[in-house]
Amino acid sequence: MSFTDPWLDSALIAAALREDIGRGDITTLACVLAGTQARARIVARRSCVVAGLPIVAEVMRQVDPAIVVETLVAEGALVADDTPLATLAGPARGILTGERVALNFLGRLSGIATQTHWCVQATGGKARIVDTRKTTPGLRALEKYAVRMGGGRNHRFGLDDGVLIKDNHIIASGGVARAVANARASVHHLARVEIECDTLAQVREALDAGADAILLDNMDLSSTLPEAVAIIRQARPATIIEASGNIGTDPQRIARVASSGVDLISIGALTHSAPTVDVGLDFNPR
Amino acid sequence: MSFTDPWLDSALIAAALREDIGRGDITTLACVLAGTQARARIVARRSCVVAGLPIVAEVMRQVDPAIVVETLVAEGALVADDTPLATLAGPARGILTGERVALNFLGRLSGIATQTHWCVQATGGKARIVDTRKTTPGLRALEKYAVRMGGGRNHRFGLDDGVLIKDNHIIASGGVARAVANARASVHHLARVEIECDTLAQVREALDAGADAILLDNMDLSSTLPEAVAIIRQARPATIIEASGNIGTDPQRIARVASSGVDLISIGALTHSAPTVDVGLDFNPR
Amino acid sequence: MSFTDPWLDSALIAAALREDIGRGDITTLACVLAGTQARARIVARRSCVVAGLPIVAEVMRQVDPAIVVETLVAEGALVADDTPLATLAGPARGILTGERVALNFLGRLSGIATQTHWCVQATGGKARIVDTRKTTPGLRALEKYAVRMGGGRNHRFGLDDGVLIKDNHIIASGGVARAVANARASVHHLARVEIECDTLAQVREALDAGADAILLDNMDLSSTLPEAVAIIRQARPATIIEASGNIGTDPQRIARVASSGVDLISIGALTHSAPTVDVGLDFNPR
Amino acid sequence: MSFTDPWLDSALIAAALREDIGRGDITTLACVLAGTQARARIVARRSCVVAGLPIVAEVMRQVDPAIVVETLVAEGALVADDTPLATLAGPARGILTGERVALNFLGRLSGIATQTHWCVQATGGKARIVDTRKTTPGLRALEKYAVRMGGGRNHRFGLDDGVLIKDNHIIASGGVARAVANARASVHHLARVEIECDTLAQVREALDAGADAILLDNMDLSSTLPEAVAIIRQARPATIIEASGNIGTDPQRIARVASSGVDLISIGALTHSAPTVDVGLDFNPR
Amino acid sequence: MSFTDPWLDSALIAAALREDIGRGDITTLACVLAGTQARARIVARRSCVVAGLPIVAEVMRQVDPAIVVETLVAEGALVADDTPLATLAGPARGILTGERVALNFLGRLSGIATQTHWCVQATGGKARIVDTRKTTPGLRALEKYAVRMGGGRNHRFGLDDGVLIKDNHIIASGGVARAVANARASVHHLARVEIECDTLAQVREALDAGADAILLDNMDLSSTLPEAVAIIRQARPATIIEASGNIGTDPQRIARVASSGVDLISIGALTHSAPTVDVGLDFNPR
Amino acid sequence: MSFTDPWLDSALIAAALREDIGRGDITTLACVLAGTQARARIVARRSCVVAGLPIVAEVMRQVDPAIVVETLVAEGALVADDTPLATLAGPARGILTGERVALNFLGRLSGIATQTHWCVQATGGKARIVDTRKTTPGLRALEKYAVRMGGGRNHRFGLDDGVLIKDNHIIASGGVARAVANARASVHHLARVEIECDTLAQVREALDAGADAILLDNMDLSSTLPEAVAIIRQARPATIIEASGNIGTDPQRIARVASSGVDLISIGALTHSAPTVDVGLDFNPR
Repeated sequence: MSFTDPWLDSALIAAALREDIGRGDITTLACVLAGTQARARIVARRSCVVAGLPIVAEVMRQVDPAIVVETLVAEGALVADDTPLATLAGPARGILTGERVALNFLGRLSGIATQTHWCVQATGGKARIVDTRKTTPGLRALEKYAVRMGGGRNHRFGLDDGVLIKDNHIIASGGVARAVANARASVHHLARVEIECDTLAQVREALDAGADAILLDNMDLSSTLPEAVAIIRQARPATIIEASGNIGTDPQRIARVASSGVDLISIGALTHSAPTVDVGLDFNPR
Repeated sequence: MSFTDPWLDSALIAAALREDIGRGDITTLACVLAGTQARARIVARRSCVVAGLPIVAEVMRQVDPAIVVETLVAEGALVADDTPLATLAGPARGILTGERVALNFLGRLSGIATQTHWCVQATGGKARIVDTRKTTPGLRALEKYAVRMGGGRNHRFGLDDGVLIKDNHIIASGGVARAVANARASVHHLARVEIECDTLAQVREALDAGADAILLDNMDLSSTLPEAVAIIRQARPATIIEASGNIGTDPQRIARVASSGVDLISIGALTHSAPTVDVGLDFNPR
Repeated sequence: MSFTDPWLDSALIAAALREDIGRGDITTLACVLAGTQARARIVARRSCVVAGLPIVAEVMRQVDPAIVVETLVAEGALVADDTPLATLAGPARGILTGERVALNFLGRLSGIATQTHWCVQATGGKARIVDTRKTTPGLRALEKYAVRMGGGRNHRFGLDDGVLIKDNHIIASGGVARAVANARASVHHLARVEIECDTLAQVREALDAGADAILLDNMDLSSTLPEAVAIIRQARPATIIEASGNIGTDPQRIARVASSGVDLISIGALTHSAPTVDVGLDFNPR
Repeated sequence: MSFTDPWLDSALIAAALREDIGRGDITTLACVLAGTQARARIVARRSCVVAGLPIVAEVMRQVDPAIVVETLVAEGALVADDTPLATLAGPARGILTGERVALNFLGRLSGIATQTHWCVQATGGKARIVDTRKTTPGLRALEKYAVRMGGGRNHRFGLDDGVLIKDNHIIASGGVARAVANARASVHHLARVEIECDTLAQVREALDAGADAILLDNMDLSSTLPEAVAIIRQARPATIIEASGNIGTDPQRIARVASSGVDLISIGALTHSAPTVDVGLDFNPR
Repeated sequence: MSFTDPWLDSALIAAALREDIGRGDITTLACVLAGTQARARIVARRSCVVAGLPIVAEVMRQVDPAIVVETLVAEGALVADDTPLATLAGPARGILTGERVALNFLGRLSGIATQTHWCVQATGGKARIVDTRKTTPGLRALEKYAVRMGGGRNHRFGLDDGVLIKDNHIIASGGVARAVANARASVHHLARVEIECDTLAQVREALDAGADAILLDNMDLSSTLPEAVAIIRQARPATIIEASGNIGTDPQRIARVASSGVDLISIGALTHSAPTVDVGLDFNPR
Repeated sequence: MSFTDPWLDSALIAAALREDIGRGDITTLACVLAGTQARARIVARRSCVVAGLPIVAEVMRQVDPAIVVETLVAEGALVADDTPLATLAGPARGILTGERVALNFLGRLSGIATQTHWCVQATGGKARIVDTRKTTPGLRALEKYAVRMGGGRNHRFGLDDGVLIKDNHIIASGGVARAVANARASVHHLARVEIECDTLAQVREALDAGADAILLDNMDLSSTLPEAVAIIRQARPATIIEASGNIGTDPQRIARVASSGVDLISIGALTHSAPTVDVGLDFNPR
């Protein structure tokens, strides 16, 4: 990994290349002469928010350091259909061998960034859109980066950098009050304690227990959710309020939740169900 | 990995757990006492073709070998909304710590299997549905397993176990005839040679060059595609014909392509854009 | 690692064994017959707080699963000179080959736990003793576990699970206010923001900026430190106050700092300079 | 690792950085702008023998290759309080992110070198000071390097590059004579055979058995130790004599042992209990 | 690995260096001063086909990037006794430390290339010489590269990139017909199906089952083998015919098999029993 | 690796299986039903000294723990043609998938043990046969184990566990005397110093320098070698004498060298050119 850009994980990219290339790209090695040079362009066939061009560059660098990648748009840019995103120049074999892995990363990450962008737009600036832990196994850092490129914010990165007491934790620990107290007594002083509440009764318990943040899960948008927000804002106004569940990526639902006064809206579909963006590589040998 | 079930990759699962758990599940360790036992059920909230239960079992085994997982349906089964898929019994901490990773795998793989199932149904048995290399980096073996669970078949697994000469290879190698000849002269005798053709002229060149299989890419479904099939069947009937491009997961398009007489229909969306299936874990401590 | 006991890292232990054993324990393989059985006891030669017996058990398990380890005292127990801590029974070769690595871990961790214990005692319960990031490279999780066994609490585990703005960050970001604001705007909502202050002016800036926690570094114990505490408690009483710097492990200094009203006292020497505890293995073949 | 400087293990350094940085240095990424440049100095706050500057350089190189490290003193130099040891120049983010790991290595290794230096001074040149296998798990090569920087010499590096028959081996193999004979018969011809003796009787047995080296363990400094040396020097003068046990780092004890005529004095405390040296990083952005 | 030259596996070379160097080349570090420069030549003491010079270069690069390697002959060249193959210039320590590993690779690979060359010569161009899976564990890609350098061709690289139904598969699957059918139904469309036949009856079964390739194993060269060829060529002339078993590297046997009309002759001894070529390093310091 | 049987390296075996199996044994998975059970025997087709049966067992255990391996002869036994060595029972798929890797190890190691055996026989007990560092990259520990199974002894295992000053070291360090002195001053006290001598003048220099062991390299067997032995035995009789170079595996040459009075004869061909032993697997499903 890069220690200063932790999402840019060269080991992950190497693993993806090994997965695809295996014992060697037998088609390219057979069909293309070793010295052949080429130029190519990576093009977004559809409008999208671009995320992943540094990954494309790293893929090509690993395949053959002689390949020069120049990016034509900024990460996070919203581009129109058929926008060239980057040019590649160098050994034809390497470009062809790395093409699919590069596009697989770019299409997926741009898909997440694009989906996030439209969700963020739907809030009208009234709440933050944040991701969840419903990410692709192995790709969490990258997918959370894509969420940022789409204008979203990140929730915790894993089970170790934030306390979120969910319904099952409450059951297993014997109630809201005990769960919050146990968490407070165990974790270090820089961690806030958040708890998921499904009912107004739980919300009141959580407030009594001194939770720093409350996740309102799967509440009815027209009745329970606004009531919960009101209760919290009256009792302890600095409490952070997150809404999740049943929201999806529908702009109207997002707008309604954002208007309810919550601070954050977390959406699993940002990462687990974003359709890939169609990106392609146009190739010209020289 | 398991050498006899190569898709069941325990190292991949360990990496996914490390990614999520990091330095420890601070919420669970704080809220749930070490000896607490629990039972839980994994439930498909929506109808789906199930794929990934062995992964769930392996996730839980790695988190805590004392957790007993029993599956309630067979891999590849088509289930209705709200079908219980498996029961878990054992240490509550382990179940809660492993929950998200288990569900992330199960939801994604069942999503792919389900999407594949409906595409296979659409063919009316007239052609095979096969996947592509447009898979999630790191998850190819698993995603191709999910395609099989959905009734699909696999294309090659990587760049090393099949020759597929694509448009860019043709450009880089100087034409269809030379590309096919080079491939034949280089790869071992157990590999067939397939070539992508965009035009009828290329199809005729490919037939002359003795290609074993021809990929008809992005051809017009009502004119060029059936004509290409006719040309091939007349010239060298044993040639394998694959169609791809612009097909997606729309049943009607799939049905039309299947009726054209091709052997295989390859669909990238099987893996790159399958929506995740909503699966959850219902928890009861004891 | 163990996903439910994350400090019990079997890969770390395997690496330590490889480091010591290299291509094989040539003395033991030469001198001791393969089938020889033995019993042994691990003994603390000096009074200490015990930490690391599960590591001893894992070391022996990795060397030879036939070795049975029984612990005689609880982790975290304060024991007298010459206290037997565990018995080992099984193949003599394995016991001798694993001895040094087991004792190296046990002596070091017990050293940290013991030093922590006396620091905690010195506070009279008026403040928490916490560790720092001044740990041995590679052993952080274990050393922080030893701190807990000694009755201490942990600070953040790394640069990723807590925000602590230190003097150099303030310089690099252009002042206390801007640093706090930037941190708040970037990190997820479950992270508190702590800032290190060397002067009362900085303390006031930090309070204005809304820091959740303030680290009073290297302040004069008789004047500046109590004054800083008073300022904070008056302005924003819920602010968490940590003291560090120049405190070391001297009980009287610790008592004075604890009496000043701070919440936490962080001490690098807990981990970076704890003398090892003399532990030995008494061996009887049978 | 470096194959020509084997103690300079880049994988170990990378692991230490991953341990500290985890998913990213959230404070630095939040507070310091990406392009900010800085200069910094690493300073020894206390007099010490310096060891570890190449590690500092490698840490910074791994964090960001744009950081330029210049060392101001030689490895192994004895420096006064407040001596600048190195300058760093480059991206501020990287310097701040790598600071703690760099200092943790430098402080520990300089601590070992310093402690070794004073032990070597205490011998008056009459015997070699050597280390033991009581090193920190994972850091043996580095710690043995630090011993050399302090003027000490190394004992064997592991269980595979030297034969040392200890008390427990003698018990397990049925006596001194048999142990020596078995060792000689098994190991390759380039390995000498050393045996630990606790009594004069064992010393005589060891001489009869033809041991190449004898370790006098825990003997009374005023009676048994000199007598053992005399017996050995008379019987087989070329035998290498090592003393260990109960010696510690007290200069007077070391001087007495050195005067007894032994060749080597091995001291576990060189590595297992050396206090860290206080080293800091003074930071100036530019 | 190199993704464009997959046989050039830098991780394998690093492992070989670690295996040989362990904790450090104590002879070279002791005897040769750090700054000493040297020149050296690698020389083939005996006539051979050269394979492995890029490995020599990579070995030296990993040991010390300051070593400059210039090759004097092309890979695959047939050279006479005492031919210089490459010059090395740079730090003496690195050259001496890397020497043995470099020569071990070069001698082995050139041995395989040389043995292959003479087998290929023996065919008179009438059949291809191919390798088998009887390669050295860990070195398959390199050894198959050496076969190519010697003018041979490769069989499949592993169990995953080609279907070869052997005698034990036939037994386990219930006969030739069922085995071929099962294989066809399971593997992807780019894989041909080959089956091993020991008798003429099996050959006929295989032809009926539609096998793409038939391996005639251990057949009598004067009777059964030519008869089998005749049967196949008459029934389905495009079937690929491979001969193996009892052939070895004897030129006359190879010539006879080649004359029988088979397409391929596979020879395990190419890789499992090729004598190493005597290559040495002549050294001059400067 | 096994810490008590260090040559039994399970990671190496896993790597060999991954190399051969890749993404899966497509033939076996296609042809053999999942539940099929089988029995098989591993048979030595030719007389040999057996080495590697524990590797066979570990290969099968890794492929499928349900496979039961029973060995029929002892490691190191000299067996006749067509001797059954082990039986296998369990899942047919696993036996077939692991067969080739198991046999590749067994054939190679038995080949080395067999060649060593005949060399040892040729000495008439007058000198030890030892191996060299001319081993297969990655397999050194295993090949040195095979040498022991054949009755040979091992030389040093790597560059780190023995000092052997070779001709190039002498050149680079400025002569025999300086090389020996430098080695003595640098390595730990348990290492003997050996030096390679090509001439009688060098032998005398080495004796003067106090070398513990002298390697007589490539000397004329009828004149220089016996003269060198005589010089050494007269000057310093305890010096260890090793002969190497131009000896090979010819029994008569070995006998002559052994009669010259040397202690050790080192032979690279033991490991670098031992022909593999023909071992096979006879298979019966049940």
